Amino acid sequence: MPHDGGTTYQPGARLAPFHLRRVSALVQGHHPDHGVDVFERLRCVDGGNIVFPPFDRAAMRTAVEAEIEQLAAAPVVIGGDHSITLPILRALAKRHGQMAIVHFDAHLDLSGADVWGDDYHHGTPIRHIIDEGLVEPGQLYQIGIRGPRGTANDDLLARSGGHTLVSAEAVAERSPKRICAELRERIGTRPVYITFDIDAIDPAFAPGTGTPVPGGITSREALGLLRGLAGLDVRGADLVEVCPPLDHADITSHLGANLVWEMLALMAVRVER
Amino acid sequence: MPHDGGTTYQPGARLAPFHLRRVSALVQGHHPDHGVDVFERLRCVDGGNIVFPPFDRAAMRTAVEAEIEQLAAAPVVIGGDHSITLPILRALAKRHGQMAIVHFDAHLDLSGADVWGDDYHHGTPIRHIIDEGLVEPGQLYQIGIRGPRGTANDDLLARSGGHTLVSAEAVAERSPKRICAELRERIGTRPVYITFDIDAIDPAFAPGTGTPVPGGITSREALGLLRGLAGLDVRGADLVEVCPPLDHADITSHLGANLVWEMLALMAVRVER
Amino acid sequence: MPHDGGTTYQPGARLAPFHLRRVSALVQGHHPDHGVDVFERLRCVDGGNIVFPPFDRAAMRTAVEAEIEQLAAAPVVIGGDHSITLPILRALAKRHGQMAIVHFDAHLDLSGADVWGDDYHHGTPIRHIIDEGLVEPGQLYQIGIRGPRGTANDDLLARSGGHTLVSAEAVAERSPKRICAELRERIGTRPVYITFDIDAIDPAFAPGTGTPVPGGITSREALGLLRGLAGLDVRGADLVEVCPPLDHADITSHLGANLVWEMLALMAVRVER
Amino acid sequence: MPHDGGTTYQPGARLAPFHLRRVSALVQGHHPDHGVDVFERLRCVDGGNIVFPPFDRAAMRTAVEAEIEQLAAAPVVIGGDHSITLPILRALAKRHGQMAIVHFDAHLDLSGADVWGDDYHHGTPIRHIIDEGLVEPGQLYQIGIRGPRGTANDDLLARSGGHTLVSAEAVAERSPKRICAELRERIGTRPVYITFDIDAIDPAFAPGTGTPVPGGITSREALGLLRGLAGLDVRGADLVEVCPPLDHADITSHLGANLVWEMLALMAVRVER
Amino acid sequence: MPHDGGTTYQPGARLAPFHLRRVSALVQGHHPDHGVDVFERLRCVDGGNIVFPPFDRAAMRTAVEAEIEQLAAAPVVIGGDHSITLPILRALAKRHGQMAIVHFDAHLDLSGADVWGDDYHHGTPIRHIIDEGLVEPGQLYQIGIRGPRGTANDDLLARSGGHTLVSAEAVAERSPKRICAELRERIGTRPVYITFDIDAIDPAFAPGTGTPVPGGITSREALGLLRGLAGLDVRGADLVEVCPPLDHADITSHLGANLVWEMLALMAVRVER
Amino acid sequence: MPHDGGTTYQPGARLAPFHLRRVSALVQGHHPDHGVDVFERLRCVDGGNIVFPPFDRAAMRTAVEAEIEQLAAAPVVIGGDHSITLPILRALAKRHGQMAIVHFDAHLDLSGADVWGDDYHHGTPIRHIIDEGLVEPGQLYQIGIRGPRGTANDDLLARSGGHTLVSAEAVAERSPKRICAELRERIGTRPVYITFDIDAIDPAFAPGTGTPVPGGITSREALGLLRGLAGLDVRGADLVEVCPPLDHADITSHLGANLVWEMLALMAVRVER
Repeated sequence: MPHDGGTTYQPGARLAPFHLRRVSALVQGHHPDHGVDVFERLRCVDGGNIVFPPFDRAAMRTAVEAEIEQLAAAPVVIGGDHSITLPILRALAKRHGQMAIVHFDAHLDLSGADVWGDDYHHGTPIRHIIDEGLVEPGQLYQIGIRGPRGTANDDLLARSGGHTLVSAEAVAERSPKRICAELRERIGTRPVYITFDIDAIDPAFAPGTGTPVPGGITSREALGLLRGLAGLDVRGADLVEVCPPLDHADITSHLGANLVWEMLALMAVRVER
Repeated sequence: MPHDGGTTYQPGARLAPFHLRRVSALVQGHHPDHGVDVFERLRCVDGGNIVFPPFDRAAMRTAVEAEIEQLAAAPVVIGGDHSITLPILRALAKRHGQMAIVHFDAHLDLSGADVWGDDYHHGTPIRHIIDEGLVEPGQLYQIGIRGPRGTANDDLLARSGGHTLVSAEAVAERSPKRICAELRERIGTRPVYITFDIDAIDPAFAPGTGTPVPGGITSREALGLLRGLAGLDVRGADLVEVCPPLDHADITSHLGANLVWEMLALMAVRVER
Repeated sequence: MPHDGGTTYQPGARLAPFHLRRVSALVQGHHPDHGVDVFERLRCVDGGNIVFPPFDRAAMRTAVEAEIEQLAAAPVVIGGDHSITLPILRALAKRHGQMAIVHFDAHLDLSGADVWGDDYHHGTPIRHIIDEGLVEPGQLYQIGIRGPRGTANDDLLARSGGHTLVSAEAVAERSPKRICAELRERIGTRPVYITFDIDAIDPAFAPGTGTPVPGGITSREALGLLRGLAGLDVRGADLVEVCPPLDHADITSHLGANLVWEMLALMAVRVER
Repeated sequence: MPHDGGTTYQPGARLAPFHLRRVSALVQGHHPDHGVDVFERLRCVDGGNIVFPPFDRAAMRTAVEAEIEQLAAAPVVIGGDHSITLPILRALAKRHGQMAIVHFDAHLDLSGADVWGDDYHHGTPIRHIIDEGLVEPGQLYQIGIRGPRGTANDDLLARSGGHTLVSAEAVAERSPKRICAELRERIGTRPVYITFDIDAIDPAFAPGTGTPVPGGITSREALGLLRGLAGLDVRGADLVEVCPPLDHADITSHLGANLVWEMLALMAVRVER
Repeated sequence: MPHDGGTTYQPGARLAPFHLRRVSALVQGHHPDHGVDVFERLRCVDGGNIVFPPFDRAAMRTAVEAEIEQLAAAPVVIGGDHSITLPILRALAKRHGQMAIVHFDAHLDLSGADVWGDDYHHGTPIRHIIDEGLVEPGQLYQIGIRGPRGTANDDLLARSGGHTLVSAEAVAERSPKRICAELRERIGTRPVYITFDIDAIDPAFAPGTGTPVPGGITSREALGLLRGLAGLDVRGADLVEVCPPLDHADITSHLGANLVWEMLALMAVRVER
Repeated sequence: MPHDGGTTYQPGARLAPFHLRRVSALVQGHHPDHGVDVFERLRCVDGGNIVFPPFDRAAMRTAVEAEIEQLAAAPVVIGGDHSITLPILRALAKRHGQMAIVHFDAHLDLSGADVWGDDYHHGTPIRHIIDEGLVEPGQLYQIGIRGPRGTANDDLLARSGGHTLVSAEAVAERSPKRICAELRERIGTRPVYITFDIDAIDPAFAPGTGTPVPGGITSREALGLLRGLAGLDVRGADLVEVCPPLDHADITSHLGANLVWEMLALMAVRVER
């Protein structure tokens, strides 16, 4: 979904799908930790870009929701900025009802309409997802959060619904393995959606992103956190906010392609042979 | 005007004002060709950024038109993408009526609504300007045009109104001096607006732009073309499509700052001492 | 042909096809100078990459010659380094006999086996093409040549066969139009092959290349030189030595995509409607 | 303080203030760990650049000392290279007497005049600070030190005064929290100055610096180390050696802006509401 | 050894020796952990580049083996891609017999001839080293391995010979100190060869490499792992796969120069004063 | 002469010698226009870096003057910033008396002490050279000058001594050949010094420089202007202001290496065989 019409600072995420496809040449099939060959287990298809008038955020939401709704399979979507997650979840909610959501990000994405004079942009999807009841109460897990906040209210909002915030510092202190053990226990058999904003990871590992925040998790931690979700019933996922014009030597795109592969691997481990 | 919501390919032009201000430290006052000190002759003020909801192109047009209308002075506007030119000209038309327009660009910017599913983006301003009668018939001069076209119709449209197209190749063949002599004669005492899309200049000189087209004019030719307009009654100007995330070593920003200074110099030469 | 196994200085040209495909999104169909729509006139197909063991230059030559020989259509090949041109011409010679060759380059590519201890690399294709009789005597035109030479012998070899050398300086002095008029007259109805080493163009316009030589022709001149060949019977062409790891903001890839489009346009103008 | 006249390897730190100001747009006010809004608690003013003849290191020292001395408020200074720290501390000593100094750096900055033929450059400030008695004996804490040394003497000098060296390896082994607990206990109520050379942090996180040393602390550790100083009586601070020409996608500038904000936050937490 | 003829993805490692020499200006002599001055203890000589026809991998192997065989001293070799390690070890085996090998890498380098249609490239050296008996059974230690595999067979092959695989995740979990303690005990007095592929380290720290794999070890861990080998009888070492065209601000070259210095330091600590 | 202590804007030129040496690998010996092999005719020696305390501009001037004075041969010096030219000319004046000076630059370099509070920096060398009588009256030729001036006085000063100013625009209009013909006639048999500030050339061709000015001459014109001086009695030359940290893909360094080679070629053509 090459859309970055909802970006508040540095745009360019619309170009991510083209670059992730290109560098995916380096991604092979066998997953040594899970012991599965991802592309043998899954029947993966590149669904192509979703087409809509590029300047119309409302048209984007309509098109994305309609396309995802038609899919029989579990979508793994490459953004684009974070505003694409809302219509994806609207579509999936029709199939799965309320889901558990594992949300990797530097930011809470709970902004209100007052901040930028508009209610639908890449800083608001999680607030809409809560408000529209797309996530089960207490089943939102926000991982990698850090840095200056606009006000104290955002954190309060996140916690008031019983949702969980795991800061970037907490990832280092508690370790991915222990965090994931707790997530697996608390999520259980619920249908799960993973939304991964690349800026959850430190700009050192992912310089190609529009609103970088220093102090993030490492790529090794990020991969460990995804692997640690194995066993959960992942019904969809996205990777957003990779911004190729700000990347260097494609390292953010390579990281993004690996994260997408780990998402696919989570689906592959649940497939019966 | 840090707005790039109308960009069709690579966005980022919203960041240009911040970088042009920064590198303007290298621009001094005395113009050796015109023999004037630009900042002594003119009372220049940095008007700051124009504020509007960043995701709303309609809001941008309203805000820009309103702000420009209020200005007593002649505006020299730093974009942003080329969609900012339409509201500027709407505002100036209220003061000056139909103007002569000197338009530097690689592209004709005459696209219709059918191309991108929307009528207002950075590929359409000149069509609107013609359709809304903001330019005097026969007084549109498009300089630097080149490269593949969508269809043959665009060129026909440009020429049907008696407007003039000077391709990038023609600039080399005829020379900036001769081209400007003709322009000065044809424009005469009309009020003039200059809109300069940095991609008129070759990507070698201006790599920081979103829709680069090889084969452009050189920066020396561009500066010569602006200097050659001295004597015309320039009432406003803009520089658009500088895209800092794609720039290298600020060379596009330095070029942009010099082009803006040349625009100011055109106003300075007409100021009575 | 993603092969750079014959590169003597900075490799990376193997990655060019992936990047030129990506940026070709900006290339439209209508050619304003020739008055044709390239993709309406021609039935273009992306033939995909040619596959061979990447470390084996002999295998490359065998595979490329075999693939090109099978093609019914005129090939326009994206390299890769300049060593791919020899097997292409070997294949075309079986169909067309001796051809006229228009060769854009900073270098003569006439090196002998003594320089690098091997006879087949990106500095030798033109010598082999002469020695194997693939070019008609007196029908080799080398354009853009410049810079330090190893010895005086290379120039002598080029001229001894009656071939023509147009230095980068001569392009500026004589102009693309006059040079092309002479070429069209001297080549006449012969079948023509165009081999375009991107380093014919100055590193300012094409920084993404492995053996850059300052003082080159401009991109505007290069496009003019290709357009000026319209009417000739072009039976094949290649673009080589675009090296994306050394590029900035894709400007070399954008230039390359436009050069390839101009090659296709030369074929399009000869197609009966 | 845009001065890099004391740089021994790669200069460019003079440009840091311009870039940190620009990217500070992304830094908001509320600090989630300290529970304060930094810009509500503090009355922050951008004091502008300090002006002096740029080639005269002695003039720099005179100007900086004089300017800092005049300030009523606690200065947080953006360098420039590390040679600016000496005159800042000379000025502060007149107000606070000997201070405790927390010094983040890859280097000890204890070089003598013999190394570069001059006594005042960016490798000597800490030696002068010790020699001039600006730091209380035993109250210098050097954090992040690593890499090859010129001789064994530098370490001896640092430790001979009872000062403390925490290597980059030790930060990982002991954790920021435990290190800061010890610092808070040992420093107590003394007035504190923080001098932060960005090269304390690994070049992966801070590529934009002139004398990079691999093996540094992470940005997450750096932020944690600053936050862990909360409660100390910080009377001044600087951030030095950010070198924008060597940066990529502003990630070092973004990191620098966040470090400066953490320094301000340390002052904010001690302000009575 | 400026050779990258065996590279499967992005070439350019041939340029590494030129850049590592240049940035080695920042590497001083005294090692604070080992307490030795490396260049006082060792008599280091820059042996220059090894010369061979650059396109001929067989010629490379012959030349490298011959040159290394002639050396009286322990070689520390700067690649080039990983295919240079095989001839180095062939030469050293004549002197030392089977060695223990500490192999830092993201990849197992155990590919077979079936993958790329050729048996000798940068993905196969370790398989040859095992097959030719150059490593003592059970004395191959592969550190930093991670990411997608082609098939499950590679891991089986590595472990079937009793060899040890320490993944990048395991380095974080077990710590460099504990890993090295185990290595020192298991290796004992055997002659040791260290082969360090820079891609063992995460692309954040080492973006300049041709086949980057996210999730790698940090530069601090890498330096710690090398320091932890002190006491072992290191008879040779190489650093490979630094690819300067993909580097930024020389950070990969600086890291490489420090790694080479740590290798030399391991030799220095065993030299009798 | 790795010195940039006299730089007013972006430093980094001290690193140029290291990079020009490195890329000089691409420069061969035979000059096709002059018909000489430069390295056969001349006995060239790399004299190494001149050593002085790097922070002391006075020490730089003393050291450079002393070193150049000792040389028996004609020096071709690689800077460094433009402040190195004054001591070189002081040394040469002792041998040759007043010389003719061909000065390539975007700037006049005639600033006074009032501008930066100091009399010796990279904006003043030509004023000192005139004031100290190191150039023969009327024998200073400044080529490539352009852009905003501080005041009108600078141009007056340059012309008042009968010196010649050839703007960048004039180079395009009059052509290198005609300009050089005039220079050769006016200079005659006088001893000549060439000082080439790389910023005479447009930033497109030479992005790696500290005070870029758009609208410069092309690299092809620059090479032509140097070649056109053949026959003059060149006794020394320098190339200054190449700033590698701002370069891309070494294109400025490659250009610099070729300009130095052209300077050597001017000496070679006068050597008796």
